[in-house]
Amino acid sequence: MSFPHRHLLGIEPLAASEIQTILDTALALREILDRPIKKVPALRGKTVVNLFYEASTRTRSSFEIAEKALSADSVSIATTASSAQKGETLLDTARNLEAMNPDMIVIRHAAAGAPHFLARHCRSAIVNAGDGAHEHPTQALLDALTLRQRKRRLAGLRVAIVGDLLHSRVCRSNLWLLSKLGAEVVLCGPPTLVPPGIEALAPVSYDLDEAVTGCDAIMMLRVQRERMSGGYYPSDREYRRCFGLTEARVKRAKRDVLILHPGPMNRGVEIDSEVADGPYSVILEQVTNGVAIRMAVLYMLLGGGQEPAA
Amino acid sequence: MSFPHRHLLGIEPLAASEIQTILDTALALREILDRPIKKVPALRGKTVVNLFYEASTRTRSSFEIAEKALSADSVSIATTASSAQKGETLLDTARNLEAMNPDMIVIRHAAAGAPHFLARHCRSAIVNAGDGAHEHPTQALLDALTLRQRKRRLAGLRVAIVGDLLHSRVCRSNLWLLSKLGAEVVLCGPPTLVPPGIEALAPVSYDLDEAVTGCDAIMMLRVQRERMSGGYYPSDREYRRCFGLTEARVKRAKRDVLILHPGPMNRGVEIDSEVADGPYSVILEQVTNGVAIRMAVLYMLLGGGQEPAA
Amino acid sequence: MSFPHRHLLGIEPLAASEIQTILDTALALREILDRPIKKVPALRGKTVVNLFYEASTRTRSSFEIAEKALSADSVSIATTASSAQKGETLLDTARNLEAMNPDMIVIRHAAAGAPHFLARHCRSAIVNAGDGAHEHPTQALLDALTLRQRKRRLAGLRVAIVGDLLHSRVCRSNLWLLSKLGAEVVLCGPPTLVPPGIEALAPVSYDLDEAVTGCDAIMMLRVQRERMSGGYYPSDREYRRCFGLTEARVKRAKRDVLILHPGPMNRGVEIDSEVADGPYSVILEQVTNGVAIRMAVLYMLLGGGQEPAA
Repeated sequence: MSFPHRHLLGIEPLAASEIQTILDTALALREILDRPIKKVPALRGKTVVNLFYEASTRTRSSFEIAEKALSADSVSIATTASSAQKGETLLDTARNLEAMNPDMIVIRHAAAGAPHFLARHCRSAIVNAGDGAHEHPTQALLDALTLRQRKRRLAGLRVAIVGDLLHSRVCRSNLWLLSKLGAEVVLCGPPTLVPPGIEALAPVSYDLDEAVTGCDAIMMLRVQRERMSGGYYPSDREYRRCFGLTEARVKRAKRDVLILHPGPMNRGVEIDSEVADGPYSVILEQVTNGVAIRMAVLYMLLGGGQEPAA
Repeated sequence: MSFPHRHLLGIEPLAASEIQTILDTALALREILDRPIKKVPALRGKTVVNLFYEASTRTRSSFEIAEKALSADSVSIATTASSAQKGETLLDTARNLEAMNPDMIVIRHAAAGAPHFLARHCRSAIVNAGDGAHEHPTQALLDALTLRQRKRRLAGLRVAIVGDLLHSRVCRSNLWLLSKLGAEVVLCGPPTLVPPGIEALAPVSYDLDEAVTGCDAIMMLRVQRERMSGGYYPSDREYRRCFGLTEARVKRAKRDVLILHPGPMNRGVEIDSEVADGPYSVILEQVTNGVAIRMAVLYMLLGGGQEPAA
Repeated sequence: MSFPHRHLLGIEPLAASEIQTILDTALALREILDRPIKKVPALRGKTVVNLFYEASTRTRSSFEIAEKALSADSVSIATTASSAQKGETLLDTARNLEAMNPDMIVIRHAAAGAPHFLARHCRSAIVNAGDGAHEHPTQALLDALTLRQRKRRLAGLRVAIVGDLLHSRVCRSNLWLLSKLGAEVVLCGPPTLVPPGIEALAPVSYDLDEAVTGCDAIMMLRVQRERMSGGYYPSDREYRRCFGLTEARVKRAKRDVLILHPGPMNRGVEIDSEVADGPYSVILEQVTNGVAIRMAVLYMLLGGGQEPAA
């Protein structure tokens, strides 16, 4: 397996062939999750520290389940119970954890670049589980795996990424990934939530009806109300009217369109329940694929020459 | 083993014979906990998610220890660090966890019916670890195991359940279980803490001296001060005077009476230390039996045809 | 292995030879952490409860990693999610945990003597992971292991312990340990942070330049701002001026001086970054040795006759 990276910091530094290798590996490992005994000894005796400076149910659980499925030992640290309270710097915390000889540190942090900073100063493999509004590479990989499974390819697909483009690390990672693999991306969101300069990476539309027309996939982004100090849009109702994915709007896309959402969803704001739970939704497949992608990343960065099969 | 249920949602839906089967299984598994190596591979490769929306030391620890003793992998999620903060619905959280292919979700939630709701919408086995003021089935099962070990039977025993009947899921689960297995229950508590209509299930007394007279067992309930907005009783002192279990009151019961409490205790309020730590108390046996009961539930719902012995 | 204690409550009750035995065992076990598969089955089927009533990243992680390296099962309880909220006494919490048959309880508590109290009332092995301002024995042991590895001996070393002597359990445990093993200790701190009577145990200096002169090792203590209600010293800047370890001050010590700090550090207050990250610093070695010490303690208290090697 030719994967020349020690860390997974983002999608931007990856070559298209490396992304395909991760997806192929995830596909091979995913089958383990359907076995009656969902466990292989591939990473026995490897230790992974999950260092989460932001609340997370699904990403942390997904990593933990992936770690256990590969028989790694995991230690999870959530910020509220950590020595961050005592004023320690991120680097000191990471260096201290590293001095305990873990093989990998999975980090989620509110500051863009935090994982890259650790990668420059630590020996452990660093995996970015979301850094500020920058990147969330395992999310983009699981989205890509989901699209590839259903559409057999990514090249040539027309994909709309819709919503809060400003605060979204999911958007940024997907933009990189889809561009690298030859998909055509259109961005759409309210003007207040479109970061300046992003139109250099993909065309931006402010009209959702227009943006979704003819799409093979629509990736809805979460309105990150917890990151907003207010004033980005008038009301949830108004947001839904202009940028919410309704059944009527889904009909403008291709007949076999796929609907993705990274979760947690604000039902009735950025997405209607009829769409989230409807026939085009692959939202729960994304979650299942998330465990497989994290298994692949763990295995590729830590597994070395061992065989994953039990 | 004939256990026809996919979930453990409460005691109410169980037949008496099914309850006996769980108790028999727990008794067989309990012996593992006394071994020098307290671990059997029965559930190796099974994944259990412990989803706790309410603080809990003993119930969560008890489930985790039971899971590890059977070699299951467990992922624990406490509400404060979860995406509940981000406004996700319970169903979306559960569906997302389920999409990660766990074999079981153990849930504690402040809303009565939350586990039943999940059971209707999820494929995983659901175990109710306490839902609002509704049921706490593993607590009633461990209480029953403790009584049965000491008294050799449940049928015909006279059992007083005393205290905050209004907020107590422990009371409700025990009422169902004891009635199904032929024990005679008397309820006792201050009028403000007796839910209307409960006298249809068992006689209610407002006089503790009277209620405990001739009892084989007294189950004290915790005064759930954290659930009370105040005004249910004048003061802790007054509560103790009328409804606290004192040594004098214990003497009114049978000479071999057993004292139970689900914990955590408010010493000096609903129970005196002389009683809690006295010769009739089986409070710590309850805790030990709690691990055995949870092992039994895990094993019966997940173990399938495998043998539990190492 | 001759270790006659059931608990590790502090350094004070240990004989010098027992301390050496722990250090020897840690040195033997440390090598496991450098293997590709960092795991031996020595404590398989043993259960350890980590009961932390105070926030901690490094100590809890260090214990958890040590437990997993020896294949023990661990259950971690942090105070915020615990039934301490419900008003339960420490003893009831511990007795309840104990009734679940763990083999060891590792406890950190804000009250001095809490682990000793548990040891008197519980059957489980108790390990003190820090009790108030009293003792933190595994910290002193890891400090000693670090000194012994570098200096080949502890007897005859001149060691300055500097800073907040008043609130420091690390200071107290190190004072005992270094005295027992024949090192010469000098204490130094601002008068407001020197507990009365401590001069009976070691000489106290109020002048850091004087205290570090000719030292083989300088142990800096953390200024525990979170424990201070204020007024102990005028400002961080003033603290650094009088009691901060600067490069200039390090030069007054021996040429091969070692700099230790238990972490988390207040950089620019009690220690300058040039010193913390400089050539004399063994701060990260301390952390690595911490895992080895905790493995040794777990193994000596729980391992019995088993061989640790895989």
